[in-house]
Amino acid sequence: MKSDIDTLMQARKLDALIVFGNAEHNPPMYYLTGGGHVSHATVIKKRGDEPIYFHADMERDEAAKSGLKRIPYTKYDYDDFFKKANKDALLASAMRYELMFKDAGVTSGRVGVYGTYDLSSVFGMLTQLQKLLPAIEFVGEPREDSLFMRAMETKDEAEVERIRRMGRITTTVVGKVREYLTSRDVRDDEVLLNEDGSPLTVGDVHSKIRLWVSEQGAELPSGFIFAIGRDAGVPHSAGNPSDLMRLGQTIVFDIYPAEAGGGYYYDFTRTWSLGYATPEAQELYDQVFEIFNKLTDNFDLNAPFKEYHRMTCEYYESKGHKTPLNTKTPVEGYVHSLGHGVGLNIHERPFSGLTSGDDERLAPGVVITSEPGLYYPEKGIGVRIEDTLWVCPDGQIERLAEYPYDFVLPMKKWKRS
Amino acid sequence: MKSDIDTLMQARKLDALIVFGNAEHNPPMYYLTGGGHVSHATVIKKRGDEPIYFHADMERDEAAKSGLKRIPYTKYDYDDFFKKANKDALLASAMRYELMFKDAGVTSGRVGVYGTYDLSSVFGMLTQLQKLLPAIEFVGEPREDSLFMRAMETKDEAEVERIRRMGRITTTVVGKVREYLTSRDVRDDEVLLNEDGSPLTVGDVHSKIRLWVSEQGAELPSGFIFAIGRDAGVPHSAGNPSDLMRLGQTIVFDIYPAEAGGGYYYDFTRTWSLGYATPEAQELYDQVFEIFNKLTDNFDLNAPFKEYHRMTCEYYESKGHKTPLNTKTPVEGYVHSLGHGVGLNIHERPFSGLTSGDDERLAPGVVITSEPGLYYPEKGIGVRIEDTLWVCPDGQIERLAEYPYDFVLPMKKWKRS
Repeated sequence: MKSDIDTLMQARKLDALIVFGNAEHNPPMYYLTGGGHVSHATVIKKRGDEPIYFHADMERDEAAKSGLKRIPYTKYDYDDFFKKANKDALLASAMRYELMFKDAGVTSGRVGVYGTYDLSSVFGMLTQLQKLLPAIEFVGEPREDSLFMRAMETKDEAEVERIRRMGRITTTVVGKVREYLTSRDVRDDEVLLNEDGSPLTVGDVHSKIRLWVSEQGAELPSGFIFAIGRDAGVPHSAGNPSDLMRLGQTIVFDIYPAEAGGGYYYDFTRTWSLGYATPEAQELYDQVFEIFNKLTDNFDLNAPFKEYHRMTCEYYESKGHKTPLNTKTPVEGYVHSLGHGVGLNIHERPFSGLTSGDDERLAPGVVITSEPGLYYPEKGIGVRIEDTLWVCPDGQIERLAEYPYDFVLPMKKWKRS
Repeated sequence: MKSDIDTLMQARKLDALIVFGNAEHNPPMYYLTGGGHVSHATVIKKRGDEPIYFHADMERDEAAKSGLKRIPYTKYDYDDFFKKANKDALLASAMRYELMFKDAGVTSGRVGVYGTYDLSSVFGMLTQLQKLLPAIEFVGEPREDSLFMRAMETKDEAEVERIRRMGRITTTVVGKVREYLTSRDVRDDEVLLNEDGSPLTVGDVHSKIRLWVSEQGAELPSGFIFAIGRDAGVPHSAGNPSDLMRLGQTIVFDIYPAEAGGGYYYDFTRTWSLGYATPEAQELYDQVFEIFNKLTDNFDLNAPFKEYHRMTCEYYESKGHKTPLNTKTPVEGYVHSLGHGVGLNIHERPFSGLTSGDDERLAPGVVITSEPGLYYPEKGIGVRIEDTLWVCPDGQIERLAEYPYDFVLPMKKWKRS
């Protein structure tokens, strides 16, 4: 949680941290400032002190909403630095940052560097700044284990309520897609039809999904997956827009909207087969659903997340599938890990892969996905079921949105002959 | 243009370049790969060679759409590096990048670093990689003048056609907003009403705008501005959602959608006053419109962009306003520069500020905005008019979308008494 930041800085021997970039679509900056329409900002925080928010003067009103101590960039005379630096923009920028660090009371020690932003300018500026501030050591951290990823790993009730709200939005949209698909007319060759009688494509459904998410006031900053047939069997394929929507093929619908402005995410997957399912797909679905339920019944407070991934591998192996436990990077069978944390990042700690840390646990306050799947792209089959869960402070596991697990969706205007 | 990259590398003494990050919402990566659902990718390009696209194996189908030479990360045994590196994730990652550079034929020289991505992990990895590859010097560049910003500065006909298409989408949405606003019922106190009789807020209009942009299959990755009254007078205020929509107040509507997936932008602004305008607002509008038209008539092939900004300042000064020419960072009057390039970035070269380069010119192929404005936040007035223009190879200036310049919009159900 945010209140852990100073403790984490201490543990990582960081005397200060600096965050670069926009307030939105930039998790560390959003976490500290609360988002808003503020671009190219900087936050510097000395350990034990409140963060200082540096921003363009034009964006003062938006920046003020953060409630943080603020300093507009205009306090520092960039044009003067630019002249002194002989028009070397990176050096001029470094001269400004030198004063900003002084204003934040930071002149030496280890400084962690964070944010999602233009690498070129920050790398170039830091190279210059290092010469101006030789007593500071700038430090990077692995993306998935950074100080912010650690702080964000556990959520308070206010954060969870925002994720819950995104869950309601997600399941509302999923319900609309289901209603839309099952109401279609169907051609003799089992292709679904649009209102105008043309074949319904995956691209048509993608447009509807975008529209309905937007109607709910949410965003899809990391895209979404709605894929059928072979594409459903490739876990990260978004779906081929020109594919036709057909009965009896597996559809993987993995949707992860976020609050408008790049806030909290929800992550959710269902697999459907319209009208009927092939026996082979049904068997795979039954296996995925069995382990999905078994996991739900077995999640324990403070257990290592990867133990559940291992349990999933072992279950699938008993059914004859390849998994990361028996095969190096399998391309069919069970080809990914069980789940991940969700918050301001769609993928964050705790992770569940076999090599993830022993400290990536179902600790009180984490929000995770559980998403076992099976993939046979050459057979045109993919199956995944996913919910987002909160490990409550009391150890209960709360599913943050409810939605049915039907695989075969009956078509309103079609019956199997 | 993309074909300029090798020449630019030569001029900047860069032997290779490396781009980090997702394929979408990441201009340099999008420029090289064409976008798609590919995350945490890397492109390395040796000068004179084709780029090599490194990506997760799971995203092979999406990555293949780029047509580039590809290598999946699984070629390199990360788990083995992680062991060898004693579980130091940054070092293990650097060991993988060392091999990737070797596969790209790059073992020495100056290497430019690009992309919008997690700063912490890249900075940390490069710090380690520098030790493994001491013959390479990693180089950052100023964001607004990077090699990619230079290459992207001029557009070919295919890129312009995509921007033109976004212009049609933009003006379609603006037309819907105009129709919606002018059709409202109006209360005695000049507040507009929703269908259900409740007061129409700026937030209600924001929702409609998001919905209509989505309906057109476009995105708003950098947000948009729809602001009334005092907020219209603060150029970067997005608009206060709880403000009520009223007659006779200036509304600044600045909308800059992009192609879905983080492609090309369009940038457009109109200022409206519903029902009637105050004489003071009308006078300011007339001044902005006069200089807007004067600029349109005067744009010349290869002229420095900043000369038109200076022309705008001089015009406004003759009318008694503060400008960047007579006031350091004014907060009322004319408070920004005239315009900027538009492409995969909402703001890119050429820039028009007084300190922008002599080489930031209306060169054949640039796409720019022209957006003079006047702002008096304390008076609750802001005015800006903006179109996006292409400097065609033959020197003609093409306005990339047509839309009327009416200031006062008559209300269908209200007449001034």
